[in-house]
Amino acid sequence: MKIRSVLSAAVLAVATTFAATQALAQDTFTLRLAETWGPNFPIFGDATKSMAAMAEKMSDGRLKIRIDSSNKHKAPLGVFDMVRAGQYDMGHSASYYWKGKVPNTLFFTSMPFGMTALEQYAWFYYGDGMELMQEVYEPLGLKSFPGGNTGIQMGGWFRKEIKSIEDLQGLKMRIPGFAGEVFSEVGVSPTNIAPGELYTALERNTIDAVEWVGPALDLRLGFQQIADYYYTGWHEPATELQFLVNQKVWDKLPADLQEILRISMRTAAYDMLIQSQHENAKAWASIKEEYPNVQIKKFPTEVFQTMYKANQKLLKEAAAGDELAAKIVESQEDYLEKTRAYTDISERAYLNTMAEVE
Amino acid sequence: MKIRSVLSAAVLAVATTFAATQALAQDTFTLRLAETWGPNFPIFGDATKSMAAMAEKMSDGRLKIRIDSSNKHKAPLGVFDMVRAGQYDMGHSASYYWKGKVPNTLFFTSMPFGMTALEQYAWFYYGDGMELMQEVYEPLGLKSFPGGNTGIQMGGWFRKEIKSIEDLQGLKMRIPGFAGEVFSEVGVSPTNIAPGELYTALERNTIDAVEWVGPALDLRLGFQQIADYYYTGWHEPATELQFLVNQKVWDKLPADLQEILRISMRTAAYDMLIQSQHENAKAWASIKEEYPNVQIKKFPTEVFQTMYKANQKLLKEAAAGDELAAKIVESQEDYLEKTRAYTDISERAYLNTMAEVE
Repeated sequence: MKIRSVLSAAVLAVATTFAATQALAQDTFTLRLAETWGPNFPIFGDATKSMAAMAEKMSDGRLKIRIDSSNKHKAPLGVFDMVRAGQYDMGHSASYYWKGKVPNTLFFTSMPFGMTALEQYAWFYYGDGMELMQEVYEPLGLKSFPGGNTGIQMGGWFRKEIKSIEDLQGLKMRIPGFAGEVFSEVGVSPTNIAPGELYTALERNTIDAVEWVGPALDLRLGFQQIADYYYTGWHEPATELQFLVNQKVWDKLPADLQEILRISMRTAAYDMLIQSQHENAKAWASIKEEYPNVQIKKFPTEVFQTMYKANQKLLKEAAAGDELAAKIVESQEDYLEKTRAYTDISERAYLNTMAEVE
Repeated sequence: MKIRSVLSAAVLAVATTFAATQALAQDTFTLRLAETWGPNFPIFGDATKSMAAMAEKMSDGRLKIRIDSSNKHKAPLGVFDMVRAGQYDMGHSASYYWKGKVPNTLFFTSMPFGMTALEQYAWFYYGDGMELMQEVYEPLGLKSFPGGNTGIQMGGWFRKEIKSIEDLQGLKMRIPGFAGEVFSEVGVSPTNIAPGELYTALERNTIDAVEWVGPALDLRLGFQQIADYYYTGWHEPATELQFLVNQKVWDKLPADLQEILRISMRTAAYDMLIQSQHENAKAWASIKEEYPNVQIKKFPTEVFQTMYKANQKLLKEAAAGDELAAKIVESQEDYLEKTRAYTDISERAYLNTMAEVE
């Protein structure tokens, strides 16, 4: 063996050893995420993009998240199935979309007459919320995390003013989910129509009213041009989106990348609530300026009262015969009672005071 | 040269090269943080601890933050000076404490009759807030970040009910800062007393009223035992604490650790708002149960109205003659007007609706 060869071999051996150590510490992971939304969907889509950007930057490129929007995977409401089956590593969607498959997923988005965003985050992170959500998702091989909050959604656009419970009888309204069930208890005919057809349906009186999200997202669909009455919200006081992670994928990540992923999701979720406040305020200012026809209305107290009772009845039915459902409903009700008593003497009192002065 | 020596030299050379690369990527940083609070101060102190824990875990131990509480550094209100001088790398305190040194630091904690926490975070992160704050802190060689929000602070504990503006004349109240100045414009004599002496001062009528924070922190000081009237808030609707970082220390961190630090601070700040909601609700429930003497009161509208005008006057004075102050006040006023118009049709409308049903 010549000196030269010995040297090369030695260098190679040492280099290989170091490279292996390096590789272990520096393994990179690329996770594929399917989102329910289309490409460049505002606010909701910003949450996934900013989450991915934070994770990549904090991990110095070791954790990359590749986002597929619905135009790519063609299954906006298939996110749950795809992440469960391992076709995607992660998802961004909303828990209540899966209630047809697993009824108890209903409770982790927003409940009619329920908690506000601050109250609900407090329930998730300092109350029993995260633990209960995991109790629902763990048997499915999934981890579920808060994925961004819209704040209180508006009660919808109506072409005629609602002055009494009679005005709701037979009223055709686009309002999906649990809130649709509550509305149907007070005489409304809830329908579900694809977003792209909503404007025309309202314009041609195929429907009389439509619920979408709030000023920022509603403005883009143009309802303010053909409906004068914009109702305040009650049915989704704090719509929380969802990050889903396949448990096996999660388990493969080293502890530092798990924490980076967890914190990126948590921050992106909080940020979305703040962005929603910002964008909604901006959109509402421009609706007020450009569409003086639009009036803010509150449903009459008797309507709220009747819907509130209908909601209580439906919740009781949902909880009947399912121990976990009963536990979740009880936890939310208890938490709401306590947290709202404080919100009433703090936030609500302050906002009402401010509305009086000038 | 013997083969053995050549081999050793080669291994050493290669090993050294790899070790150097490794060290660059894996350099660890220990930052020293001074907080204004004492050790184990609830909520505020939890924010620094959780920030440090996130940073350490996400960086796999490469970024460590060592926290000194006020019992250690003995200068609760010296955080600004110590971080500026480089005695500490970071601080956790509140921006308005430095208004005596740099008047424009006043605007980044909370302003009387100002924004709520959600509104203010929206101003910081999606409006001009962060940029304006940096305009104030950059010339001082500091970076400033939101450090956790208490939510709306309560208006204080009073031993006698306030029924009119006359009842405030000559009233001795512990209320510091800008809010104290507003109160003094309506006849109150504001005083500042060390926290440890507040209970005795109130009990012995050295003062007639005391403002502290909210139920969770007030409960520990025992005011509910000796004052019956707990007033709703107006003077600090969204008290935001502050993380300070010495600019030179920040500049030394590699990009991934800067991002880890930034996101850890941001998340800890949001979390503190949520924890405040949780702890205040819990404390308020126990005050209600154990101290039925305590009544929630709102100042009469004429009192609010007079204080609101006094506040406007003081703000105008603060803005006079300082271009940056004027720019900040204008930015906050414009943002508040727009964001509150939306809060009124969303959060406020919903909370008022919910207060009606049952």
